Amino acid sequence: MPNDELEALRQRLAAFAADRDWDQFHAPKNLAMALIAECAELVEHFQWLSEEQSTALDEEKIAAVRLELADILIYLVRIADKLDVDLLAAARDKIAINEARYPVDKVRGDARRASEYEI
Amino acid sequence: MPNDELEALRQRLAAFAADRDWDQFHAPKNLAMALIAECAELVEHFQWLSEEQSTALDEEKIAAVRLELADILIYLVRIADKLDVDLLAAARDKIAINEARYPVDKVRGDARRASEYEI
Amino acid sequence: MPNDELEALRQRLAAFAADRDWDQFHAPKNLAMALIAECAELVEHFQWLSEEQSTALDEEKIAAVRLELADILIYLVRIADKLDVDLLAAARDKIAINEARYPVDKVRGDARRASEYEI
Amino acid sequence: MPNDELEALRQRLAAFAADRDWDQFHAPKNLAMALIAECAELVEHFQWLSEEQSTALDEEKIAAVRLELADILIYLVRIADKLDVDLLAAARDKIAINEARYPVDKVRGDARRASEYEI
Repeated sequence: MPNDELEALRQRLAAFAADRDWDQFHAPKNLAMALIAECAELVEHFQWLSEEQSTALDEEKIAAVRLELADILIYLVRIADKLDVDLLAAARDKIAINEARYPVDKVRGDARRASEYEI
Repeated sequence: MPNDELEALRQRLAAFAADRDWDQFHAPKNLAMALIAECAELVEHFQWLSEEQSTALDEEKIAAVRLELADILIYLVRIADKLDVDLLAAARDKIAINEARYPVDKVRGDARRASEYEI
Repeated sequence: MPNDELEALRQRLAAFAADRDWDQFHAPKNLAMALIAECAELVEHFQWLSEEQSTALDEEKIAAVRLELADILIYLVRIADKLDVDLLAAARDKIAINEARYPVDKVRGDARRASEYEI
Repeated sequence: MPNDELEALRQRLAAFAADRDWDQFHAPKNLAMALIAECAELVEHFQWLSEEQSTALDEEKIAAVRLELADILIYLVRIADKLDVDLLAAARDKIAINEARYPVDKVRGDARRASEYEI
């Protein structure tokens, strides 16, 4: 059973593209590029800030960042739609994998790349 | 009113980080980096495929791509949580902006970067 | 006049691709994807480190990061070759633009996105 | 022995940052973020183009892409400087690794992610 609001978003984005005849551009390859470009706009907001500054953005900055997050969700929902992936089910599956991969008693307080842990 | 399933995901991810004492690493700056790194893993799947091939992935590939999409959603929900952004409300606001920026009769069949359209 | 060592690198990479019949995959679009994927591997090394930690990597980490930087240069030289761009000349032109855009007396000690400065 | 023109570029960029008191922002972590953000601007130029279109850019587009490539080289040289990495030596080492990893008779005409080849 799909998530109602995400499903509504998926449908609205599909209609947005169809209305503009943009499905011809929306191959997953291209949408992956658009998605990473949007992420980079988010990264740009933070690149010269300290970690601490990034936790306390002013109102103007947070408004801009909020719309970057929106762009990322939009392209993520769009590519998942094109690939027929249920995002929420996928996320649940991935969290279960992560819970097994990073057991609490082993990784507590220690964040590294997965590849850096000896399995 | 939050979306129920996304809200459940947000809470589960917050608990996942808290259990591992990982909040200390989850400054928005760092989460933005993790998010773009996950997007790049998605991009890697598509870089040597044609657009057409990207629309018809085999089963093994789609399973891998599905988990990359999950990773992206996971970090997106996590950074939105840290910034106190309601992702779905933000997406709705952004779509309204896009609808005004890309009127159907002006852009039909023509996808360019926003900056390439004369306003 | 091309830079001798960069020119040697360009030629070696062209031969590497030709020997493997990989030019068919090396459209600029695809190389741009490969390039950003390599950058993301660099980003991954830094995402959970503090800025300070990123300035003092241990030997093992620096060896890994060094090869990521190599990958980025390799794809950058390759895409520039495919687009017939002289990288060093382009960099010199861009620095001149940056010197005009960020005058010392205006931006000293203040790094923001270009778009955040009033022109 | 450093490459003369790349070395000149490295020195010019170091002076550019020093003049503006920007070294305080140029931790490798931050430069990696700036680097990937520049790559994304390159990606954006190609995201809605076909592979074939990406090989035949018009003059205006190539001029814009050329400056994106310049930005990437600039940040790449800058981060290598901060990490004390000789980019050209690193690239030579990495190509030697790639030559061993992708033997001509094994991979001819077949480009996949390294992880997709059985070793």
